Amino acid sequence: MKKANKKINAAIIIIGNEILSGRTQDVNVMNLSKWLNELGVKVEEVRIVPDDETAIIHTVNFLKERFSYIFTTGGIGPTHDDITAKSISKAFNLKYGKHKDAYQILEKYYGSKNFSTGRKKMAMMPTKASLILNPSSGAPGFIVDNVYCLPGVPSILKSMLGGLKNKIKGGKKILSKTISAQTVESEIAKSLEKVQHKFKKVDIGSYPFFRLGKIGVSMVIRSSDKKKIDACCKEIVNFLKKKKIIMLGKK
Amino acid sequence: MKKANKKINAAIIIIGNEILSGRTQDVNVMNLSKWLNELGVKVEEVRIVPDDETAIIHTVNFLKERFSYIFTTGGIGPTHDDITAKSISKAFNLKYGKHKDAYQILEKYYGSKNFSTGRKKMAMMPTKASLILNPSSGAPGFIVDNVYCLPGVPSILKSMLGGLKNKIKGGKKILSKTISAQTVESEIAKSLEKVQHKFKKVDIGSYPFFRLGKIGVSMVIRSSDKKKIDACCKEIVNFLKKKKIIMLGKK
Repeated sequence: MKKANKKINAAIIIIGNEILSGRTQDVNVMNLSKWLNELGVKVEEVRIVPDDETAIIHTVNFLKERFSYIFTTGGIGPTHDDITAKSISKAFNLKYGKHKDAYQILEKYYGSKNFSTGRKKMAMMPTKASLILNPSSGAPGFIVDNVYCLPGVPSILKSMLGGLKNKIKGGKKILSKTISAQTVESEIAKSLEKVQHKFKKVDIGSYPFFRLGKIGVSMVIRSSDKKKIDACCKEIVNFLKKKKIIMLGKK
Repeated sequence: MKKANKKINAAIIIIGNEILSGRTQDVNVMNLSKWLNELGVKVEEVRIVPDDETAIIHTVNFLKERFSYIFTTGGIGPTHDDITAKSISKAFNLKYGKHKDAYQILEKYYGSKNFSTGRKKMAMMPTKASLILNPSSGAPGFIVDNVYCLPGVPSILKSMLGGLKNKIKGGKKILSKTISAQTVESEIAKSLEKVQHKFKKVDIGSYPFFRLGKIGVSMVIRSSDKKKIDACCKEIVNFLKKKKIIMLGKK
């Protein structure tokens, strides 16, 4: 794990032409980010790359030196466009071949009779990788150094996170509060900037919304320090009151 | 526009802590990719970066040299966390200041009485930028060289694409066909690989699905050459028939 004594962060690499073409709506970024947040790991960059060996290798090699954890999704199935395992082997200059434990798991899952060539391909990966068990469809993911390779199908990915939890060493959990108000951003921009200026280490985001016929702004306050969040919220609530802006919610 | 005589491609930069934290589900990648596809522009990389000036500048500078078009989304509103315009100015070493036309548009939209300091901030951008008109909420996006800066709110972004259409010079439109079949990937992997091997310039993707209680695989065939797509589909349909695999759809 890189940067162990500094902040604990992560980058996600979504591998798949289907996301870049707009055919498939990615939801793995959101699921992974939320899960990592809970563990005190902040996702600081995401890259979506095509099913292209050079693109995958470059992206992995660049990011693995700069972030504590890298998560890849996609490209670990049995078809020709599943090239993540081979690309990761090349990125780390590791032998790509039949992973004994993965082979055993898959053989047991399918039964030796139905363990076809296509299925056997899913045991091909860096031979020294650690496995990430897959409780929903057999084929395991794998870990090389700080790079965690997961499948692209969201439900399968999610089912694998449980077994991964104790392998991730997070920092302080990032907490957040959201204050929603019936206003527009330009109305509160100046006051909110002052609060941000006062609490430099708190991350304050402002997000306009239009729902149920109502226009409003959600202010999201994020930090690992609950006291700072509370103090920050207090100041926001105060300026909303002063401006006679209706608060719609706080959670 | 870079690489005008080569293939026409694009990269998308999603700017926003709210996407990285998992608070907000991005849909702009999908919307932009589909729209660009229609214009014959292939999205080949996406990066999601935080509301951080250094990250934005590095990402823009790296990608703008490598892709025909760059689209950014997010960070062009009136609050302190909206730093896209300033970051783009710095990336291009251009003066950041009051954009005359943008100022006029915004003043007219809000009326001089309601044209507050917060709203005036939305006229601050590279002073020489071209504008992207916003039919739904006034505040324009902007273009510098091959970088197109759009807002993060999906409905507003979509409303702005119409006016942008004739500014994008695409290549051949990328066509696609999808064949869905009641099978699993490992069953068709080998045959599909053979087809891919025969049609090297056609992009064949394989995507398992689980819907309405049915397990299946969608095979997506993409190319700018309709004849090649059709020939490719024919071979796929043939091997499905041979294998007695039920076809669920073709579109």
